[in-house]
Amino acid sequence: MTTFQLETKQSVEEALNSLDDAIKARDGTAALEAIKLLDWEDQRRAMSRISHEKCETLIHILGAEDGAKLLSHLAEAQAVEIIEDLPTEEAAEILAFLPSEQSSNLLRELDDDDAEEIIAKVSDSEDRQEMQRRLEYEDGCAGSLMRGGPVTFQQTSTVGEVIADLGEHAEDYTDRDVQYLYVIDEKKILKGVLRLRDLVLSPRSIPVSELMIRHPLTVIDSMPLEDLVELFEKKNFFGFPVVDAEGHLLGVVPRDAVRHEHAEDQADMFLASSGIVNGEELRSMDLKSRCIKRLSWLGPNIVLNMAAASIIAANEATLKEVIALAVFLPIVSDMSGCSGNQAVAVSIRELTLGILRPGDYWRVVIKEGAVGIINGLVLGLLLGFTAYLWKGNIYLGLVVAIALSLNTILSVLLGGLVPLFLKRMKVDPALASGPILTTCTDMCGFLLVLSLASAMLAQLAGV
Amino acid sequence: MTTFQLETKQSVEEALNSLDDAIKARDGTAALEAIKLLDWEDQRRAMSRISHEKCETLIHILGAEDGAKLLSHLAEAQAVEIIEDLPTEEAAEILAFLPSEQSSNLLRELDDDDAEEIIAKVSDSEDRQEMQRRLEYEDGCAGSLMRGGPVTFQQTSTVGEVIADLGEHAEDYTDRDVQYLYVIDEKKILKGVLRLRDLVLSPRSIPVSELMIRHPLTVIDSMPLEDLVELFEKKNFFGFPVVDAEGHLLGVVPRDAVRHEHAEDQADMFLASSGIVNGEELRSMDLKSRCIKRLSWLGPNIVLNMAAASIIAANEATLKEVIALAVFLPIVSDMSGCSGNQAVAVSIRELTLGILRPGDYWRVVIKEGAVGIINGLVLGLLLGFTAYLWKGNIYLGLVVAIALSLNTILSVLLGGLVPLFLKRMKVDPALASGPILTTCTDMCGFLLVLSLASAMLAQLAGV
Repeated sequence: MTTFQLETKQSVEEALNSLDDAIKARDGTAALEAIKLLDWEDQRRAMSRISHEKCETLIHILGAEDGAKLLSHLAEAQAVEIIEDLPTEEAAEILAFLPSEQSSNLLRELDDDDAEEIIAKVSDSEDRQEMQRRLEYEDGCAGSLMRGGPVTFQQTSTVGEVIADLGEHAEDYTDRDVQYLYVIDEKKILKGVLRLRDLVLSPRSIPVSELMIRHPLTVIDSMPLEDLVELFEKKNFFGFPVVDAEGHLLGVVPRDAVRHEHAEDQADMFLASSGIVNGEELRSMDLKSRCIKRLSWLGPNIVLNMAAASIIAANEATLKEVIALAVFLPIVSDMSGCSGNQAVAVSIRELTLGILRPGDYWRVVIKEGAVGIINGLVLGLLLGFTAYLWKGNIYLGLVVAIALSLNTILSVLLGGLVPLFLKRMKVDPALASGPILTTCTDMCGFLLVLSLASAMLAQLAGV
Repeated sequence: MTTFQLETKQSVEEALNSLDDAIKARDGTAALEAIKLLDWEDQRRAMSRISHEKCETLIHILGAEDGAKLLSHLAEAQAVEIIEDLPTEEAAEILAFLPSEQSSNLLRELDDDDAEEIIAKVSDSEDRQEMQRRLEYEDGCAGSLMRGGPVTFQQTSTVGEVIADLGEHAEDYTDRDVQYLYVIDEKKILKGVLRLRDLVLSPRSIPVSELMIRHPLTVIDSMPLEDLVELFEKKNFFGFPVVDAEGHLLGVVPRDAVRHEHAEDQADMFLASSGIVNGEELRSMDLKSRCIKRLSWLGPNIVLNMAAASIIAANEATLKEVIALAVFLPIVSDMSGCSGNQAVAVSIRELTLGILRPGDYWRVVIKEGAVGIINGLVLGLLLGFTAYLWKGNIYLGLVVAIALSLNTILSVLLGGLVPLFLKRMKVDPALASGPILTTCTDMCGFLLVLSLASAMLAQLAGV
């Protein structure tokens, strides 16, 4: 028995060197040898470190089939980057070697024009049509996640015929495809599902139509990811057959693919909430597009920031009288942002888990309001007391304490509610909640500090 | 054919009302009826809305078996909450009805003492030992994720005997467990794996030892989640048999469970980066613990914030001379935080994908340095130009532009590197990167603005 241990990374450098040599010598066989010495993770690392030109050469010398295999081990964002750089014909050849759910995922990440061009160059007309059709599906829906080519039999086949066929074609059917077999009529309408186990334990002469599970649960090709996730949580199935509106069997969406897509969604949520928008960024991407991607989020943000800071500008007179306030403005702004972001995260998580619906405003108001009052008081008192100790002026403490308390209450309420509004408006809450929240709470925070201070100006003068 | 459509939510309110009535009447049968009308998502919603007392009553009147079923539909954090509230005996009874990988997941989330107490009350000694053993595994490792009770046969059994046994026990074996069968020796050491398909297509009289795949790939029970994720990416297997150091077959870790755990990890990353720490928060949890959980992250943060703001306090004199700077301090602090957080997210993502290793400092420095210089210049010029337009003082523009540019470079470098350091120190990068980053960049930002201004005080006076 060989207990699986992930290999040690000692010979990685050697393999990388041989890979480099092979690329320079344009030797496809040697390159393949070198790649085979690398595990999946090291293949990703290696590809992220070689230049775009070398990468293109590598794919070229490997040929379409091995190139496709390499691509399928990479992170999706890496594979897309490579496809973008390849000549259209070569990209088309490689995509044709990938399973259709993988090729369509990559095509979907490209510009529409690029994708169309590549598809036009695919030589096999069936592949071409399949890619075209899949490209039209929404990202993450059953049609885009399904595995094509389920093993089908006609209703009239007998158990013996099916078993014989399975034996004959054993090599063609991968492990995962034969545990459920699909029974269709002559129009390819799905009629039933056949379990391999039942097949084994039945007399060979009966037709499969007698053995199959009739009226199987199916999903429509347009079913979105969140419904699929819910469905797989409910039903302990390995997969669901995917049909179009007429009931034609199109493929099978496996639990595994849904889980994978769901994990990717969770990762995107994290990235979006940190300001990495419009798809993943990898450091192997070119500098220009990385800068533009990040600036596309920073740009609007700095404008919002300036808008918020204009509140300070409008109250310069007060600030000049009580210069100590300048110390507290960033603290109030930062801390309110932190409190509000916690509420955002809880709302997004509850929405994901299905515990919260976009219409549940009151529940959020009540639950967040309570936390806001308590945490606002705790943080406000802490900051206010510090301010008092520092300058020995009780009014400074009061201004700071009241401002932070009120602003915390406001920000947790807003943080809890904004994801619900955004979800209802079909905007990604992870992406937009942060900037909206911080702009509002910054403005209110500055306003609270400065207007409370200006109301107590006599008591604060000179602090 | 019944195409699966998720039910409309119209009758949900009715079902909730009947559930409420059933709880009041302490009528277990009626409660079960009502629950069955709700889909999985509505069960989660319902349980998040009823009080802790009612929830306890509900579980009590449902009885252990149906209570366990309800629990298994809830989000993990919800189930833990309910288990915590139940009397120890009842909790033990319910956990015994859950699959062992689920019960151990819940037990792991409880306080150690509570978990021990509950396990002690489990009546079946085999269940008790199994729970005890599983509890010792690290969260997410193969031993904690594996499904117990794989279908095993002795080496000496014949194909015919195995097929007959499968037929007899068809009801006991769930769908997913029989596609691979495990062959063991008398000491329960794993000897081989048998594919149902091969079994079907073989003569009935040969012993399974001739048919089985010898030396199957196995994983050791302590293999951590990240290695499992990598392994499943590499090998297109449905699952791996899990063995202990002596080679005893303990269970099977399915691809599905690994994917699920991985998605949970991604979600935790998002929550941690937003300041929800020490496990998930749901709004159904009691107010006190929600406030304490959030404050445990906000508390250290406000102290760090005050430390950063002390830089402003130390430079009050400069600020009083050039009051306009007060407007720009929060902008510089906020924007540097945003830029740095983008770099944090990219590093965390690349670490997750295996493209980056904790030792790859230089790569990050070079790649982030370039982005920092460009984005720093763009943002700095934008803010500087705005400052100049506002006050008509070119030196104010210069101070602001230089400060934001330099601080952006610093913050993307730091943001890119901090997750690597934290990963090396076995601290969760998603949790700690943000506070470390913003404290450093706030301090440096304030310092840059104020010391540049004090160097140009003559040119800035009165702005």
